[in-house]
Amino acid sequence: MFAVEVKVGLKKGVSDPEGSNTRKSLELLGYEEVKEVRSLKVYRMQIDATSREEAQERLEEMCKRLLSNPVINTHEIVFM
Amino acid sequence: MFAVEVKVGLKKGVSDPEGSNTRKSLELLGYEEVKEVRSLKVYRMQIDATSREEAQERLEEMCKRLLSNPVINTHEIVFM
Repeated sequence: MFAVEVKVGLKKGVSDPEGSNTRKSLELLGYEEVKEVRSLKVYRMQIDATSREEAQERLEEMCKRLLSNPVINTHEIVFM
Repeated sequence: MFAVEVKVGLKKGVSDPEGSNTRKSLELLGYEEVKEVRSLKVYRMQIDATSREEAQERLEEMCKRLLSNPVINTHEIVFM
């Protein structure tokens, strides 16, 4: 069993209103030191596999088929 | 300048429909090996501070004031 985080973000150049509005709100609260905010969606999973390589391969497939939209998203698979 | 990830998740016992529906959808697509999915929101930030400790302290404050709802959320600050 592997614990994994699949991080789905937005590609460079794709606007991220949630991130930029978060930055603006933080600024209004007095946190001017925050220079950039990008929002990401993370899926923390428990996955059964015989090896890390197998898990990685299956997860890449899941990202392509369901979790990530290749037109606008990037994804990252991180084993914990 | 520090690169930081603020991970906002749901406390244990708080239902996570996005996570459980993602698991169900993956199961329907044939990925029965995925045993659990929890969803998290991540804010990837660039923050100016004189030290890591100062950044950490300010970020904890931001979580309390804006990013996280202590009734249902947990938060984690990870320096990259």
